[in-house]
Amino acid sequence: MANDKEIRVDEIKKHNSDQDCWLVVNDNVWNLTEFAPQHPGGAAIIYKYAGRDASEAYNSIHAPSLLSTNLRREDNKGKFNTADAAASDPEWLKPPPTETRAIEVGAKPPLQTLINSYDFEGVASRTVTAKTWAFYSSAATDLITRDANKSMFDRIWFRPRLMRDVKHASTKTKILGCEVDLPFFVSPAAMAKLVHPDGEKALAAGCATKGVAQCISSNASFPVGEITSTQPNHPFFFQLYVNKDRAASEKLLAEVEAAGVKAIMVTVDAPVPGKREADERVKADAAALQRVPNSGATARNDNKGGGLGRTMGGYIDPTLSWKDVKWLRRSTKLPIVLKGVQSASDVKLAMDYGLDGVVLSNHGGRNLDTSPPSILTLLELNRLCPEVFSRMEIFVDSGIRRGTDILKCLCLGAKAVGMGRPFLYAVNYGAEGVEHFIEIMRDELETSMRLVGINSLEEAHPGLVNTLDLDRFVPSTMGDDDMKSVREKSKL
Amino acid sequence: MANDKEIRVDEIKKHNSDQDCWLVVNDNVWNLTEFAPQHPGGAAIIYKYAGRDASEAYNSIHAPSLLSTNLRREDNKGKFNTADAAASDPEWLKPPPTETRAIEVGAKPPLQTLINSYDFEGVASRTVTAKTWAFYSSAATDLITRDANKSMFDRIWFRPRLMRDVKHASTKTKILGCEVDLPFFVSPAAMAKLVHPDGEKALAAGCATKGVAQCISSNASFPVGEITSTQPNHPFFFQLYVNKDRAASEKLLAEVEAAGVKAIMVTVDAPVPGKREADERVKADAAALQRVPNSGATARNDNKGGGLGRTMGGYIDPTLSWKDVKWLRRSTKLPIVLKGVQSASDVKLAMDYGLDGVVLSNHGGRNLDTSPPSILTLLELNRLCPEVFSRMEIFVDSGIRRGTDILKCLCLGAKAVGMGRPFLYAVNYGAEGVEHFIEIMRDELETSMRLVGINSLEEAHPGLVNTLDLDRFVPSTMGDDDMKSVREKSKL
Amino acid sequence: MANDKEIRVDEIKKHNSDQDCWLVVNDNVWNLTEFAPQHPGGAAIIYKYAGRDASEAYNSIHAPSLLSTNLRREDNKGKFNTADAAASDPEWLKPPPTETRAIEVGAKPPLQTLINSYDFEGVASRTVTAKTWAFYSSAATDLITRDANKSMFDRIWFRPRLMRDVKHASTKTKILGCEVDLPFFVSPAAMAKLVHPDGEKALAAGCATKGVAQCISSNASFPVGEITSTQPNHPFFFQLYVNKDRAASEKLLAEVEAAGVKAIMVTVDAPVPGKREADERVKADAAALQRVPNSGATARNDNKGGGLGRTMGGYIDPTLSWKDVKWLRRSTKLPIVLKGVQSASDVKLAMDYGLDGVVLSNHGGRNLDTSPPSILTLLELNRLCPEVFSRMEIFVDSGIRRGTDILKCLCLGAKAVGMGRPFLYAVNYGAEGVEHFIEIMRDELETSMRLVGINSLEEAHPGLVNTLDLDRFVPSTMGDDDMKSVREKSKL
Amino acid sequence: MANDKEIRVDEIKKHNSDQDCWLVVNDNVWNLTEFAPQHPGGAAIIYKYAGRDASEAYNSIHAPSLLSTNLRREDNKGKFNTADAAASDPEWLKPPPTETRAIEVGAKPPLQTLINSYDFEGVASRTVTAKTWAFYSSAATDLITRDANKSMFDRIWFRPRLMRDVKHASTKTKILGCEVDLPFFVSPAAMAKLVHPDGEKALAAGCATKGVAQCISSNASFPVGEITSTQPNHPFFFQLYVNKDRAASEKLLAEVEAAGVKAIMVTVDAPVPGKREADERVKADAAALQRVPNSGATARNDNKGGGLGRTMGGYIDPTLSWKDVKWLRRSTKLPIVLKGVQSASDVKLAMDYGLDGVVLSNHGGRNLDTSPPSILTLLELNRLCPEVFSRMEIFVDSGIRRGTDILKCLCLGAKAVGMGRPFLYAVNYGAEGVEHFIEIMRDELETSMRLVGINSLEEAHPGLVNTLDLDRFVPSTMGDDDMKSVREKSKL
Repeated sequence: MANDKEIRVDEIKKHNSDQDCWLVVNDNVWNLTEFAPQHPGGAAIIYKYAGRDASEAYNSIHAPSLLSTNLRREDNKGKFNTADAAASDPEWLKPPPTETRAIEVGAKPPLQTLINSYDFEGVASRTVTAKTWAFYSSAATDLITRDANKSMFDRIWFRPRLMRDVKHASTKTKILGCEVDLPFFVSPAAMAKLVHPDGEKALAAGCATKGVAQCISSNASFPVGEITSTQPNHPFFFQLYVNKDRAASEKLLAEVEAAGVKAIMVTVDAPVPGKREADERVKADAAALQRVPNSGATARNDNKGGGLGRTMGGYIDPTLSWKDVKWLRRSTKLPIVLKGVQSASDVKLAMDYGLDGVVLSNHGGRNLDTSPPSILTLLELNRLCPEVFSRMEIFVDSGIRRGTDILKCLCLGAKAVGMGRPFLYAVNYGAEGVEHFIEIMRDELETSMRLVGINSLEEAHPGLVNTLDLDRFVPSTMGDDDMKSVREKSKL
Repeated sequence: MANDKEIRVDEIKKHNSDQDCWLVVNDNVWNLTEFAPQHPGGAAIIYKYAGRDASEAYNSIHAPSLLSTNLRREDNKGKFNTADAAASDPEWLKPPPTETRAIEVGAKPPLQTLINSYDFEGVASRTVTAKTWAFYSSAATDLITRDANKSMFDRIWFRPRLMRDVKHASTKTKILGCEVDLPFFVSPAAMAKLVHPDGEKALAAGCATKGVAQCISSNASFPVGEITSTQPNHPFFFQLYVNKDRAASEKLLAEVEAAGVKAIMVTVDAPVPGKREADERVKADAAALQRVPNSGATARNDNKGGGLGRTMGGYIDPTLSWKDVKWLRRSTKLPIVLKGVQSASDVKLAMDYGLDGVVLSNHGGRNLDTSPPSILTLLELNRLCPEVFSRMEIFVDSGIRRGTDILKCLCLGAKAVGMGRPFLYAVNYGAEGVEHFIEIMRDELETSMRLVGINSLEEAHPGLVNTLDLDRFVPSTMGDDDMKSVREKSKL
Repeated sequence: MANDKEIRVDEIKKHNSDQDCWLVVNDNVWNLTEFAPQHPGGAAIIYKYAGRDASEAYNSIHAPSLLSTNLRREDNKGKFNTADAAASDPEWLKPPPTETRAIEVGAKPPLQTLINSYDFEGVASRTVTAKTWAFYSSAATDLITRDANKSMFDRIWFRPRLMRDVKHASTKTKILGCEVDLPFFVSPAAMAKLVHPDGEKALAAGCATKGVAQCISSNASFPVGEITSTQPNHPFFFQLYVNKDRAASEKLLAEVEAAGVKAIMVTVDAPVPGKREADERVKADAAALQRVPNSGATARNDNKGGGLGRTMGGYIDPTLSWKDVKWLRRSTKLPIVLKGVQSASDVKLAMDYGLDGVVLSNHGGRNLDTSPPSILTLLELNRLCPEVFSRMEIFVDSGIRRGTDILKCLCLGAKAVGMGRPFLYAVNYGAEGVEHFIEIMRDELETSMRLVGINSLEEAHPGLVNTLDLDRFVPSTMGDDDMKSVREKSKL
Repeated sequence: MANDKEIRVDEIKKHNSDQDCWLVVNDNVWNLTEFAPQHPGGAAIIYKYAGRDASEAYNSIHAPSLLSTNLRREDNKGKFNTADAAASDPEWLKPPPTETRAIEVGAKPPLQTLINSYDFEGVASRTVTAKTWAFYSSAATDLITRDANKSMFDRIWFRPRLMRDVKHASTKTKILGCEVDLPFFVSPAAMAKLVHPDGEKALAAGCATKGVAQCISSNASFPVGEITSTQPNHPFFFQLYVNKDRAASEKLLAEVEAAGVKAIMVTVDAPVPGKREADERVKADAAALQRVPNSGATARNDNKGGGLGRTMGGYIDPTLSWKDVKWLRRSTKLPIVLKGVQSASDVKLAMDYGLDGVVLSNHGGRNLDTSPPSILTLLELNRLCPEVFSRMEIFVDSGIRRGTDILKCLCLGAKAVGMGRPFLYAVNYGAEGVEHFIEIMRDELETSMRLVGINSLEEAHPGLVNTLDLDRFVPSTMGDDDMKSVREKSKL
């Protein structure tokens, strides 16, 4: 189906602007003029290679097959002839200089010396590129929610019961119909290839070995089918950003269902992107995207900075609302979970709409600063609508870093928890890193279970935790009155 | 009307003491002997130029027309003859050395790299003079209120509702009868010329472009009419310090009404100046005002230091009280708002006195340290007298730095908020800086609205915020019992 | 009455041990063998000069008259003949080397540049000797109470009332029958001569000029009569440590009554000395007391360190109890106030015993660490026994540093407050420093009064402060059950 | 009974692997092949000396008699001939290099300059080996419990009563039937020989002099009988880790009873070892155990790191449960106390099971991070089951560092408290250090008693402390519902 017409370098060189933009990718020549503005990673990076060979940059992020499955056939302009003399012109071959701090694998300490999730984070901060670090580690404005996500866990005390036979401690459970060995899953995060060439595939390999479910991002570096096919019998979920072009979303849902995915997690907390200032600033100072030499891309450097997260989210539909639940149900037979729910009020709505579960999440604190730490929302459910725990599967993510954090969520009714950034920092060491990280978390979780005196996750219950330090901050009403009714009441 | 009598340098030089003090300002010779002690900026700076040409220093702060509109005709002694040989005597021309750290425009980073209000503050701290920085950034004694003004906002969690169609988010509202594009206004702050030569005019230009209301200070660098005339159709308010000389205040109110101002904000929290130690200390160490070489001004360096804020407030009437509301109403037809109210008790009084609104404010923490953060006072109104929200317009200032701060105030019933220092730090880049700053705040506010799930400001309501962490500090009684009744009760 | 017998250096030199210890002080020769162990400043410093001329060291701390009024006539061995050749032997004259960091008056910044109490503290920390600094600034063990004394004031918000005519603000009040200009007094602190040669006299001079009452310490550097006689019409109080030798206390009470003192403050929170580790450590490292060359004093360097405060308190009677109130009443006609009361329970007892007042104090955090901050005890009185405010005068000390602190205490029912360390740091500049410090505090207090909207101290009342942040820590019962009744109740 | 067969170096050298492992210890040759894997200190340290003379290393930790009392007779291979020429081969004699930072006694400051428990801790941190420091000072994961153990004491205020005759203050009490001079005992901690060659014997010597009870660890450096025999009339307790091999525990209990021990403290909070990351990391980086040159020990460097605490606990039985109380009672006639109880629920169970006491302890924060600070558990007993105080002896350990901490526990019903790390840091100075440390604690305790106004420990009661700052975190229910009943309730 590929276009075999041979195209010479001299021809390619002419299409070097954002109005007329051709790129060579792995021996094929593509006209990306129309696609570029829709590129999840932003148009700038495409314009940077206008009229050049972008194979190396492309391969460092994307799977080979991604272009041919996503672009129109007519955009394939033909084959690139590597025998063409001009093709070896170093001037032409060499892309404009990009950020120099490369991933230095050699600089990483031996994997065995990493003994907790913070160790992985520390290594990542020193070994991935500055832009990648800014993109993953950043969060909304003043980082209040990001930090409270974790620190609120530390304000919950256990109430351990001793003198129980704790020889055995089983961490097995069932998530959305799938048997798993551990009550945590990989939360979806974009483009794992930024960290490791095998990206989501390496995550899948590590998770499959250890029996950990993986949720694949809409912005994954590989097509979903490519990832799932590497681990045929493994439980995968798919995270969906609903596209402004609903047909595109429908097509995608059909594809992932065919790819063997077991459930859909629809992200609902990002109708517009958050303001992640660290991400925005890297562009302003030094990011590669800024140094676009030959196109209108400079004009696209907007007043807000150079946020990768913001650029990437351009296709997300801000009109998504509860009335779309019907459409979602029509578009897939898989269980549907809403990811990013932040109030008891919305969890009840989700229950009333018959959804299969919710992920209490604030997107790792990346979207709205001072949105509530997830553990606070979990406590809100316990207080205001405990019935949801028997009607839906309640998951928690944002801020989970320790086995104790996991156990606390489970004691308070969560079915399982998600971890996003920690898995990205683990895949820095490939599949082996993912396995080592999972073993660390398993060990922490088992130790915590034994030291509070339980043998299985079913035995976790609220009486094992003392949440009084947080209970003070848990609302006692749903807060659903609108301003009109509030003002009326206040007049009485 | 000007006095055309020509006056020679030799004559001017003789009037070089504070008992007999003439200055040249832009070709006119003025006798400022009587005016100097009433100078809002202090007498010292005038005495410094006694018998000299003060044009340069004057123009850096004030508008050309200010002298002729504020001084008596008889104080104009005549014209200064620049052809006079002695007029070019460098010894005479050159004023005594003043502070050397000048406003270095070149040192400012490009405006586009500033992405939040703290960036503007940081730039200002490095590029305005030390005295200007001390004057604007300082606050009362131990800075407890100044810091809590902001940090208390960070202790309020949102309760976002997801799955709402948030394609549209309108920030329009109506303040004191004026349609505006954004629910925040420029809080009055003295002498913007210290930061930028166009001062309040640059603020007006930026605000007019963006539809933001501006409140002009009694101590503005330009006469009100000069500012308002630059933006004829724009909503301006005027901040009034009531003068010990009430007739002066009446004249001023008539002028500002004629100048097209739409409302009066009467400052009530500064009957005496606060103790702003950073402002006081600059004099003690290095401020220009200290180096007065030739007059009694040295004797005016008092035991408290060199506070510009304190010196400037000398004319404010500490006897202002509720019985003056009648006088205020008589003196202007414009809506009257009390600025600086800090208790539910006083807000109720304001309502009972039929005032049009209040600004809950502690003067940015500049007057009484440990006065309550404004958000605490807003919560107090919600608890103790919610009826005021439907009877008056409630505004909030002090500590607003983020779009989330604004939205929280609006959820709790505020009509709009004021920002003072942030606008001064923005005008450091002139009108363009003001526009960029407003765009940043608009973007933060719109993002916050969308991420909590609302489309317009009317939809903001208390159920969208979790204020439990602050509710503990909100009084449950008005606290109006005096000591006698307290002691009597305690005897029971 | 002096002994005129002439004594030669050769004779004096023989009495150079702690078993036989003569010293020359200002031309008199004293046998201090019996007195040394009772010396409030410790025996070591006396033994250091055994057989030598101690005039210089003596005069740096004590008044000339102190020896003759405190020692037995028979201990005066005679006159010292300065014409004696051996008297000018530098070897004999020169005392063993003492600490080298002297009071460098030249190093002090100009008094006018000090604008708050912390400035005085900072200067003192740099200009008094290390031992003096350790003695005054130190507090018990982990400094928790010392620091909370101040920080708890910062957790009280004012509830200002605006639009009151605040032209006038009177700080006058009446303390224990004495009219004073300000509602604060000098809390007793030992040996002000360590800071300034005029010590308590300089304090008295400054206080008299400004109308501030002064409480003189049992361990003052001058006899009480010498201090009071310098300011005949000024209100002085006397702080009493009850002596193990009750007759000594009776004699002292008679003397101070004769000296014109107006009230007695009996310290009750120091039956044993607190553990002030900074004070203890200075000896261990470098203090002068350590370097006693010629006596058994070395053996007195005990295992606890070298605390001046501890050494000084050796004569205090730990058996003092409520039954001694009768004895106190018998021993003086003056009003009696208990200083150091720390519970509502004891304040009620004091009321029942008919005492005239109490000072809520924890000795500046110097005795028992985690004893309650005084403001907490004041709140406890408001909650548990408000009737005491109309039956006794309630004073507060420990941690007062700002005018706002004073006003908060007065709003909560205190009659006046005491300040100890701040006055010592002020007398570092002599009487002039004391006056400047008082003016600073007066200005802060008046400003606070005006900004909360009151004209006189009588108008202060609880409704002007929001103490909710501390109310959580105020007990709701007296806590007077003993363990037996507690255990019995718990069995029910 | 020893085997007198003479064995030459050449023979010994052959048994130099972990499959065939002989060591010389003090002239005896031992075959440790079978024992090594059960070695409480880990096999690695034994394999390190395979085929060599390990006397020096052995003696630095263990008592001479330990081997012969713990090993089978047949493992004694014979006598080592020191006259053997090869025995003086320095190559053979010298063990592989171990960690170089040795205990430098010279580096310690004079004992008299240490005035509180933190001083001892500081000296230990600088003078013991890095591995010893890591082992003793480390705690579980994020150190939250370790730090809160102490800081929560600092949030309790005293409510002192003054004007009591406090000349006398008796610290005597009775613990588990034994008269002691002080209400604190040595909490069990492993291998004191790491700190001082006389280890637990030096502790015993110091404690006996001062009348302080000592609890000996299962992992002590000396056999219990050797320790107790040095201080015949002193109260010792024994801490038991129940062995997977119950017969071994039974034998041990018989031995310690014979050795004169007065009570058994069964540790129940360590069925599995905690994750002490500092301890784990020392191996990973530099610890001696890592550098095992000639054996399979390297393979034992597992993925978790090199924790000494974890290695040492391998024999502990995780199946220990309440049904084993009967077995414990059968195995000893001594009083039995459970150590490590952390909930009111378990304390009640202990009472119902007829046990003699409990130690509220979280193992110094070393096992489960965010397990509750002991003082919180003590407050929970006061709230939920105060009847236990009259039915059992309640002890507290974890975080006691000051005399005030002790007194607070006693006021809240504890019979006595334990201190572990502080005593280890004290024995750094041998028995003399222990005595000095006890004197410091006694002085702090007596001072605290006097300053709150009591003469004996029986007078301590809850009314002397204000625990409101912690009461907020004390549960009001036992929390014994399991998840099933929780879910059922929530459905109602």
